[in-house]
Amino acid sequence: MRTAAVIGTGLIGTSAALALTSRGVTVHLSDADPDSARTAASLGAGNAGPAEGPVDLAVVAVPPAHVAATIAEAQRSGLARGYLDVAGVKGGPLRDLQALGADLSQYIGTHPMSGRERSGPLAATADLFEGRPWVLTPTPETETEVLNLALELVALCRAVPVVMDADTHDRAVALVSHTPQLLSSMVAARLEHAEETAVRLCGQGMRDVTRIAASKPGMWIDIISANPGPVADVLAGIAKDLDETVQALRALQSADEAKRREGAAGIEDVLRRGNAGQVRVPGKHGTAPATYETVAVLIGDRPGELARVFADADTAGVNIEDVRMEHSTGQQAGTVQIMVDPKAALREKGWSLRQ
Amino acid sequence: MRTAAVIGTGLIGTSAALALTSRGVTVHLSDADPDSARTAASLGAGNAGPAEGPVDLAVVAVPPAHVAATIAEAQRSGLARGYLDVAGVKGGPLRDLQALGADLSQYIGTHPMSGRERSGPLAATADLFEGRPWVLTPTPETETEVLNLALELVALCRAVPVVMDADTHDRAVALVSHTPQLLSSMVAARLEHAEETAVRLCGQGMRDVTRIAASKPGMWIDIISANPGPVADVLAGIAKDLDETVQALRALQSADEAKRREGAAGIEDVLRRGNAGQVRVPGKHGTAPATYETVAVLIGDRPGELARVFADADTAGVNIEDVRMEHSTGQQAGTVQIMVDPKAALREKGWSLRQ
Repeated sequence: MRTAAVIGTGLIGTSAALALTSRGVTVHLSDADPDSARTAASLGAGNAGPAEGPVDLAVVAVPPAHVAATIAEAQRSGLARGYLDVAGVKGGPLRDLQALGADLSQYIGTHPMSGRERSGPLAATADLFEGRPWVLTPTPETETEVLNLALELVALCRAVPVVMDADTHDRAVALVSHTPQLLSSMVAARLEHAEETAVRLCGQGMRDVTRIAASKPGMWIDIISANPGPVADVLAGIAKDLDETVQALRALQSADEAKRREGAAGIEDVLRRGNAGQVRVPGKHGTAPATYETVAVLIGDRPGELARVFADADTAGVNIEDVRMEHSTGQQAGTVQIMVDPKAALREKGWSLRQ
Repeated sequence: MRTAAVIGTGLIGTSAALALTSRGVTVHLSDADPDSARTAASLGAGNAGPAEGPVDLAVVAVPPAHVAATIAEAQRSGLARGYLDVAGVKGGPLRDLQALGADLSQYIGTHPMSGRERSGPLAATADLFEGRPWVLTPTPETETEVLNLALELVALCRAVPVVMDADTHDRAVALVSHTPQLLSSMVAARLEHAEETAVRLCGQGMRDVTRIAASKPGMWIDIISANPGPVADVLAGIAKDLDETVQALRALQSADEAKRREGAAGIEDVLRRGNAGQVRVPGKHGTAPATYETVAVLIGDRPGELARVFADADTAGVNIEDVRMEHSTGQQAGTVQIMVDPKAALREKGWSLRQ
């Protein structure tokens, strides 16, 4: 790939353009808002303005509802040899393209599983996609040349390609992305009108569960609105669990001992199924979640405390696998939980370890 | 306070005993399992065995369902001047004590908001409670002397006392602790039988929302079973939001444009209410959540990388307020997100900043 056109210079489009430009591809940038394209160009993402002659690949990075029209228009002008989009849902854009009679042989749907709290070209970085999954959803019509252009883009962005069909993708993101977003919002929403005394007691569990509830609604409305069926299916499963849990809690309020035992069994069931699901969440590096040894270190809030902890761990030859800070309520101190893999130190010395 | 008896030498009881012993209080340890009390004693938490003559304070650290009987029995033997429990629910034990005709003037319910993934005496540390809220739930019958003994315990454990009545406490923990636990389990439970392709796409959002779903069921069954009413009330509110969200998603599948707009408005509503609730979650040090500037640094997985990042930040005079590691799928690299408070650096130089 020598030339590319990036249509839509938000976070994803500009980050892809930065990665392509840094690896020697000539990139042409455009956006419905010309200021945004100029900003991306000023960051070194490419040239703002139309390409002369067809480019190798057109990367369409616009909201899901605008993907099909943008690609159909680009195809009419003969902009590129291959076209892909990067929207967070894949079934809708594909069906829209079919309805518009677009050339599906030149198109492949894709979805880089990257993102950050901020949006727009100024939040973009060339390494946004490094090591992250980038889903490709070719159809039987997709030409191999177009699939290979997409694979080259993913490789240049140093992401990890994952191929699946559009509907499988949409069910997957409903499960692992759209559902946790909505449930995090629903748990957080309970705090909106809660008493201050209650809110004061929030700990690390509540903080973790509600962290993504801080997401800006705009992008999520677009994405979830474009994937209503699969999200509704997952939520219906949770609604069933929730109803059963409320019934179990009501049984626990009963004067009847047998009913109370039944209620406790219901609570145990949902907690155990949660254990079974959680253990499947990929941990560091996408491997099975490692069980690290956790070491808690109490630190003050003075500059340099963290640096000292990490430097001392390094001197001691301890490779820190993960780190979590827990802050105290009302006091200027906190605990840093350092997770170390006791097997890693031996492996680094060249020993083969049995599982 | 010069003498104390700790009944129940699990994580909380042993940690309190360690804190008291380290501050010069003579502590007598007992447990239904004598081995557990001996283990706690061997850790330096006190003496395993009965007290000679009444102690100042009896700390009852047994599961919620056994609190009342344990305290009533201790009162009959004249064990202490004051009695407190540390169970995670407060209404049930109080009502049980009333039913048993215990002396409520010598009793105060308490709940230290501390915990960790591990349990048992071997997980105990003297600093478990440092800087954490420790709820006290005195009744009108509680004598001031007993309240002051409890406040002294909290101070010796370096926790932050928070006074509220038992039912307010139970509603608060239903909201900020029991509900996020159950909802985290329900989201994680969706992964139990999910396809591997879908599970592979989990990102940091899913990891955060489901982290506490890894909790061992035992203790949570006891706690949630002892607080069924308040938990059911909070879950009923979430069930309503969930039903409305499913309806909004169904509306988004409609061919009717007006219905689809209504559906999108429903999604926006839950996301916005989530924003409004999340912003109330206390951040570091229990103050209003600070908005830190986030700096993402790409690091390799070699030993010492983290130490170098923190040492360089320290050299540059940057005080790191929080840190979050994001790992890549299938690759040996990750991003460390470093959160810095741009105002802190100025405040440390002695400037007063306007909000």
